[in-house]
Amino acid sequence: PPGFVSLVGAGPGDAGLLTRRGAERLRTADVVLYDALVDPAVLALAPSAHRFHVGKRAGRPSVSQRAIERLLVRAARAGKRVVRLKCGDPFVFGRGGEEALALAAAGVPFEVVPGVSSAVAAPALAGIPVTHRGTSAAFAVVAGHAEASYGPVLDGLAPGTLSLVVLMGVGERAGIAARLRARGWAAETPAALVLGASGELVHTWRGRLADLPGLALPPDRTHLPGTLVVGAVAALSLRSPHSTEAQPAARADARPT
Amino acid sequence: PPGFVSLVGAGPGDAGLLTRRGAERLRTADVVLYDALVDPAVLALAPSAHRFHVGKRAGRPSVSQRAIERLLVRAARAGKRVVRLKCGDPFVFGRGGEEALALAAAGVPFEVVPGVSSAVAAPALAGIPVTHRGTSAAFAVVAGHAEASYGPVLDGLAPGTLSLVVLMGVGERAGIAARLRARGWAAETPAALVLGASGELVHTWRGRLADLPGLALPPDRTHLPGTLVVGAVAALSLRSPHSTEAQPAARADARPT
Repeated sequence: PPGFVSLVGAGPGDAGLLTRRGAERLRTADVVLYDALVDPAVLALAPSAHRFHVGKRAGRPSVSQRAIERLLVRAARAGKRVVRLKCGDPFVFGRGGEEALALAAAGVPFEVVPGVSSAVAAPALAGIPVTHRGTSAAFAVVAGHAEASYGPVLDGLAPGTLSLVVLMGVGERAGIAARLRARGWAAETPAALVLGASGELVHTWRGRLADLPGLALPPDRTHLPGTLVVGAVAALSLRSPHSTEAQPAARADARPT
Repeated sequence: PPGFVSLVGAGPGDAGLLTRRGAERLRTADVVLYDALVDPAVLALAPSAHRFHVGKRAGRPSVSQRAIERLLVRAARAGKRVVRLKCGDPFVFGRGGEEALALAAAGVPFEVVPGVSSAVAAPALAGIPVTHRGTSAAFAVVAGHAEASYGPVLDGLAPGTLSLVVLMGVGERAGIAARLRARGWAAETPAALVLGASGELVHTWRGRLADLPGLALPPDRTHLPGTLVVGAVAALSLRSPHSTEAQPAARADARPT
C-alpha cells in the first residue's frame, strides 16, 4: 500500500492541547519526525513508531530542511504511515508549506492536521486574550527571530491598532521594542512576555514596551519558548478566583486551592 | 462541591480538530452552553450533559451576552461542571475574555481550554498557509462583521506586508475590499474566500482583491462561515497528489483516489 504523510500541529506543548485527530495519527504512525520543542508527553502517544528528532536547536547541528523533506518522501515511498510533528500549527512559521510542496512534487499523498497555535494559546494560558471587546478587535502574529524578517512587518503596523504577538522573539526583544518605538508605539504600551506557557516552568512578565529591552529573564528559563504580546490586552490578567501566580487561571490544573 | 466552568474552543468544526482536553471536559460535563456554529459531532461528545444553544444567528433572537454569563454563574453555583463551548478559540473574537471576567467577578473558578482557530485552520484546510517562507512572514486576523471595527484596523496595515485573514467578513466583503484598495493594496493582490472549511460543503473561491466585491456566492452555501484571505499566500494551493477540488489536500479524508 502507498505511504501517507500527516503534517500534524502538536499544539503549544501540553498533550491535552493536541487535537483528537493528531493523537489518532500518532497512535497509528509507523514513523514520527518531530521538532525540538515537542513535549515528550505528546511523543508518548506514538509508542509503536520509530521516532526521529529533526529539530533545530540553537548552537547544535540540525537536520536541514531539505534532508527532512527527503526523509518524509523516502519513508512514505517505503509504504509507511508518517507523522511530521510540529510545534503549534504547521502553517504558523512551521515550514509546513514547504514540506507540503515537496511531498506534492514527489507524488506523495499527504494531509494537514491543524494545531492550536502558541500565538493565541500562550497568551491565553497566561490570562491574556489576544482580542477583547472594546480593547482589541484584531491581532497580528510575527516571527521575531531575525530583524530582516520582522522589521518590514513592524514598520507596516500603525501603533496601537491591534494586538501584536511575536513568536521566537525573546532574544530579539530589545530590537523589536526599539523598532516599535521608532514606528511610534508609545513607551507606556502594555507588554507581556510568556515563557514556557504550557509547561511546569511557566513564567509571565508584564510591563511596558519601554521596559522590554532591559528585561532580565530568570536564568533557569532562558531555554523556554517565549511569546511576546504588545498592546492594551497585555495589561489584562484573566485569572480564576483562588488561583495563584504559579497556577494561572487559564491552565488546565487551575482548580481552587 | 463547588462548580467549575471550562471555556473550551471547539475548533473550526470537524470533531477531529477538537483538543483532547476539550473532549475530556465534554465527556464529564453536566451542562454545555454552545454557540450556533458548533458541529453536532462535537456536541455528541457530551452525551450525558444538559445542552443549551445560546448562539447568535442572523435574523433570530439570541440569548444576550449578559444572560449567558448569568447562566454560567448560576450553573456553577449549583455545583455543576459547566462547559462553555465556542467555535474556534475562545479568545479569537469569542468573547471569552468577557465571560472570564464575569466568572472571576462572581467568584466562580474557571479555566480556558484553547482551540484550533479558524483564522489559521480554514485557510490551511483549503491549501493556503497563512505564513510561507519567502512569501509571508506574518499575518493579521481581523473581525469583518462591522466597518466601525475593521475599518481602523485595515487603515493601519501597510499594503502587502503580511497575510490578512478576515473572519465573519463574508457579508462585508465589498466594503473590506474597498477599504484595502483605498489604503493602497493592489487590485492584483491574491484573495481567497473559504466557506465551510471543515465541513462537507467546503467551497473555495480564489481570485484578485479587485474581484472580491463582485463575487457571487453559491446560493446553497451562503449560510456557511466564511474566512477571507488577502495577500500573496492566497495564490498558493497546497494539494495532495490525486486529490480533487471536492477533496482538498488539507482535508483529513484526502487519500489518493
